[in-house]
Amino acid sequence: MTGGPRTLIYPAESNLPMSHRSMEPFGELDETASRIDEFILRLVGEREPRVLYEAASHIIRAGGKRLRPYLVLKSCELVGGDPNAALPFAAAVEILHTFTLIHDDIMDNDELRRGVPTVHVKWGIPIGLAAGDLLFAKVYEAILRGSSAPPETLLRCMERLTDAAISICEGQVLDISYPSAVEVSEEDYLRMIGLKTAALFRASAEVGAMVGGGEGGMVGLLGEYAHNLGLAFQLVDDCIGLTSDEKSLGKPVGSDLREGKKTLIIIHASKMAPPEEMEVIRGVLGNRNAPRDEIERAVKILERLGSIDYAHRLALEYAERARRALAPLPRTDAREELLRLTRFVVERGA
Amino acid sequence: MTGGPRTLIYPAESNLPMSHRSMEPFGELDETASRIDEFILRLVGEREPRVLYEAASHIIRAGGKRLRPYLVLKSCELVGGDPNAALPFAAAVEILHTFTLIHDDIMDNDELRRGVPTVHVKWGIPIGLAAGDLLFAKVYEAILRGSSAPPETLLRCMERLTDAAISICEGQVLDISYPSAVEVSEEDYLRMIGLKTAALFRASAEVGAMVGGGEGGMVGLLGEYAHNLGLAFQLVDDCIGLTSDEKSLGKPVGSDLREGKKTLIIIHASKMAPPEEMEVIRGVLGNRNAPRDEIERAVKILERLGSIDYAHRLALEYAERARRALAPLPRTDAREELLRLTRFVVERGA
Repeated sequence: MTGGPRTLIYPAESNLPMSHRSMEPFGELDETASRIDEFILRLVGEREPRVLYEAASHIIRAGGKRLRPYLVLKSCELVGGDPNAALPFAAAVEILHTFTLIHDDIMDNDELRRGVPTVHVKWGIPIGLAAGDLLFAKVYEAILRGSSAPPETLLRCMERLTDAAISICEGQVLDISYPSAVEVSEEDYLRMIGLKTAALFRASAEVGAMVGGGEGGMVGLLGEYAHNLGLAFQLVDDCIGLTSDEKSLGKPVGSDLREGKKTLIIIHASKMAPPEEMEVIRGVLGNRNAPRDEIERAVKILERLGSIDYAHRLALEYAERARRALAPLPRTDAREELLRLTRFVVERGA
Repeated sequence: MTGGPRTLIYPAESNLPMSHRSMEPFGELDETASRIDEFILRLVGEREPRVLYEAASHIIRAGGKRLRPYLVLKSCELVGGDPNAALPFAAAVEILHTFTLIHDDIMDNDELRRGVPTVHVKWGIPIGLAAGDLLFAKVYEAILRGSSAPPETLLRCMERLTDAAISICEGQVLDISYPSAVEVSEEDYLRMIGLKTAALFRASAEVGAMVGGGEGGMVGLLGEYAHNLGLAFQLVDDCIGLTSDEKSLGKPVGSDLREGKKTLIIIHASKMAPPEEMEVIRGVLGNRNAPRDEIERAVKILERLGSIDYAHRLALEYAERARRALAPLPRTDAREELLRLTRFVVERGA
């Protein structure tokens, strides 16, 4: 382990909600995380200018689940490849993810992430910007310097990750433009999270499978699996962002509400809420200074309206689709672990 | 041509200072620029979300000299390669350059670039950030989708460009940290512009030579040439940022002063200026609201102290080193054009 409050993400046994206690992939997920972190921190380690490299490694050091690297490694293993060969790619997807987090936090004006101040809050926007840019370059460095895969494989993998990066930019712009949009449909929202979240999940699995030497059909199924897992992940993320607590989330409860994000939960509520309840929701939506008790009141309404359940049920549906995509694949340990990961994603408390 | 005030950069014949009128490479530089722009605008053309792609292509559409693509193409030609094969790489270096401009403008709070509002001024910081990120991804897309060079060449070229991108991030962080640094030496400054400017010049020439099939010695000499050209370019840029006019610069005169940039000119003046003149310089240095007449007064002092001349003489020295690096290379048209480019870089008025 590389320090930082990973415990925040993997709470001590006694604090775990029941559904988590019996989940076994955690140990392995954690083990994977340590190897990935070691690889990444070598790439963004003690270099000059210090402030740039400290800022670039800050969010890595703060913990995180490393789900995407896990997807890379397990997909590689599932198709019969050596997961060690996939390690640089696993690091690359986490670096890519981290870069987008740093820049997203600037765009969204977020002040806390993984229980620590965001990069731009700690070092200012210019350094936050440069740290994200540096990490983006390091995605390619991780692969170009770290992998000994055949050149054609490297090129295909880089193309997949580049496409995912482009999708993330597009999705992020949709995400920040929705708060001021007159109407955002369920379809709009799902397209946005498809770009912003699921594209990198998909690319992670596909890259892992490609490095592992998986043939096209297997790469496609694993991509399909991870895409649906990514959608489920984001929907659950939206839910626990309202129902969990600041300590587990590592950021304030209801920040999506304060930022005026048009999540599926809000879209559902807009259709279901009677005018006086919608008034309460509108009172906090996009209101950066909404006090905690008003957020709590809005969350209670969203719960009563069934909007949070609605999003959670859709997450379960996508998780089921993810599982189905794995069905035709060989019944290996790796496949079992991906099935467990799917359960973790929809059952996690934060 | 793709519209936008390229005329700003290539002023009408009648406005050209004498030294420019006889310079022939302009025509060809301009021709190259059109091909590059076409390639780039296909990559960041009419896609969704519109606002993202408009923002990403804004600075491209505003004009620019396209020096770096020219370096790529001419270096490829010089080693006997087909410059058409280098076109995706020429576009890639310009896209990389443009991405850094957009993010730098955010970091430096610059409001004008190439005579148009900067991206974040026109669309806000979040879109500026995303537009830069998108372009960074497009650097790799340009190469991965655009080039049919052998895989090993693609990988080597991407490694060079990735290294250059990392250098630019490092250089940019030094650049923004110098204004608040107690002492910045000439050596510090030259290291900073080596990272921020010369690294991409060098990578451009090297990538061009590699795609052209140049052997190691030629790649090295062209890299050496371009590195020195980059240093000369930046030093001249610092000078004309003080001595030219807003129309030719496409941004306000003296913005480096207002931003507190520790250029070689300022470092020289700090050593040479008597206290009362240093007072005037300090009055505008880092003062965002310094009025135009105080900037003019400071510039007059910098001229009288010989600080601008000092930087310009050093630029001429680097240009001479650049020329010397070309000396052992085959006496082709491309070599002649690179020599002319060197003259242009140090003699240009803006």
